[in-house]
Amino acid sequence: MSLSEFTLIDRFFAHQNNQNPQVKLGVGDDCALIEVSEGYELAVTMDTMVAGVHFFSDIAPEDLAYKLLAVNLSDLASMGAQPFAVSLALTAPKIEGDWLEQFASAFILFSRDFGVDLIGGDTTRGPLTLSLQAMGQVPVGCALKRSTAKVGDFIYVTHKLGDAGLGLKILKGEYNPGSDAEFLLSRLIRPVPRINEGIKLRHYASSCIDISDGLLADLRHILQASGVGASIDWEKIPLSDAVKKYIAQTGDWQMPLSAGDDYELCFTASSQKQSSLDYHCIGKIESNLGLRVNKSGITQEIRHYGFEHFS
Amino acid sequence: MSLSEFTLIDRFFAHQNNQNPQVKLGVGDDCALIEVSEGYELAVTMDTMVAGVHFFSDIAPEDLAYKLLAVNLSDLASMGAQPFAVSLALTAPKIEGDWLEQFASAFILFSRDFGVDLIGGDTTRGPLTLSLQAMGQVPVGCALKRSTAKVGDFIYVTHKLGDAGLGLKILKGEYNPGSDAEFLLSRLIRPVPRINEGIKLRHYASSCIDISDGLLADLRHILQASGVGASIDWEKIPLSDAVKKYIAQTGDWQMPLSAGDDYELCFTASSQKQSSLDYHCIGKIESNLGLRVNKSGITQEIRHYGFEHFS
Repeated sequence: MSLSEFTLIDRFFAHQNNQNPQVKLGVGDDCALIEVSEGYELAVTMDTMVAGVHFFSDIAPEDLAYKLLAVNLSDLASMGAQPFAVSLALTAPKIEGDWLEQFASAFILFSRDFGVDLIGGDTTRGPLTLSLQAMGQVPVGCALKRSTAKVGDFIYVTHKLGDAGLGLKILKGEYNPGSDAEFLLSRLIRPVPRINEGIKLRHYASSCIDISDGLLADLRHILQASGVGASIDWEKIPLSDAVKKYIAQTGDWQMPLSAGDDYELCFTASSQKQSSLDYHCIGKIESNLGLRVNKSGITQEIRHYGFEHFS
Repeated sequence: MSLSEFTLIDRFFAHQNNQNPQVKLGVGDDCALIEVSEGYELAVTMDTMVAGVHFFSDIAPEDLAYKLLAVNLSDLASMGAQPFAVSLALTAPKIEGDWLEQFASAFILFSRDFGVDLIGGDTTRGPLTLSLQAMGQVPVGCALKRSTAKVGDFIYVTHKLGDAGLGLKILKGEYNPGSDAEFLLSRLIRPVPRINEGIKLRHYASSCIDISDGLLADLRHILQASGVGASIDWEKIPLSDAVKKYIAQTGDWQMPLSAGDDYELCFTASSQKQSSLDYHCIGKIESNLGLRVNKSGITQEIRHYGFEHFS
């Protein structure tokens, strides 16, 4: 550990009380110490956010703190894990007292809301880059993987798609939705990691992923990992009125398929009986490899899947 | 997870076999799944390395891969933990096929040498920044903390100090050691995380830290966390012939106290009986707060401790 961690993390982060019994030792030593509950596995994920790539450089510090947490906890949600701890690697070009303090306050606040403890990390000087490592636990054998979709399974999404994608178009100045702007931006800036949904799905879903890069791109991960194909029905995809209006105005019906950042879960299940689970069945797993979208009676084979870094 | 991870990490990293039984699911899903051995706690650490801050931008990719691993595994070593898994967040300005391939090959090779599995991570485009999260396990109650040094304990270091500091001076063009250059550079570029030493110390040391920022800076963490002070005897600090020669030439006897990057362990123990542990007793924990260095019969109170980011 470096001195920087000691002075900065100690000043801003060390004075919280850990709320989860799994955390035996938090911030302040060379390592944190974790004791996973008996009968549970640890689920571990790590995602990076870079200024200019994942967020605009003028993002509000509290929005950055929220999104960094939400994006990582969404990965845990998609495995059916209950999050309990995060480690933060914060690289920032210079420490402006206010910015770091606002970021730190928001990070602690949102961590508490999400029920996770900050157990360690690293602060360094450099171009604004944030990596979060998040840990959760899931009963042994119950984790929802990408690789276990079966032919005949139905494909679901938890909630509406495309709102965050429109939010991004607003920020880029590519679309003016009028009075829907506030709603659409909030869906981009405050995506809700579907933690409770993931936990409910532990004994129900056959595979699961979170939609960060777009429905097609993320569903493709399930298909490739499971060695199967799929057809989805465009008309069954749940859309907000704002997205329906955008499509009516622009004809861009592919947007909710390829836009990322919604962080809804896409999962498969063998049964359509789910009266208590108010999710949206949008298609079916098939033995025929590849991914097909049915729209207005026409079937299209998908070639382009969505956003890709380094493309 | 982003598509980039899928394409890059999958291409370079996914085809290794996990060697540790704790790793139930490695690279390729939203999360990795870990099962900690019964009776053990998980030790977790995360460190970031930024081009221009922690390494020179023209560093060889294999040297960067080695150091990133060594620095993080050293944190586990200092807790007495046996490392078994790492997650990598790699941010790079562009993917030059060769660079990434060399980095990845070296990373996998050194991971195997160190006995750890790469279980996940994230690759993104941006300024060269690497965060590694490392996990190890340690029997419940045996982790070596910073906060448990006691008055009367003896202070030890595992091996010689200052070589890496001289190596850095060579890279900066500040010192020409003649024929010692290769040795000193190797101590900077290939520091050995003292994993086995840490494990041996589980039942022996009362507190422990790894020396990344310099002896004084890191020992101070132990003192502050434990609420104690210390005196160390300069003459007892183990030094290589190369460092002795440097001090004779320059008079800079403080270098081995303040230079970082050695990644030796500094620990305290209540007994000097350690015939089987060939370490170096350099001082003693005292109730008098602060840190004193005795040299040539003169005692100096330490005010400046070493390298600090954001200073």
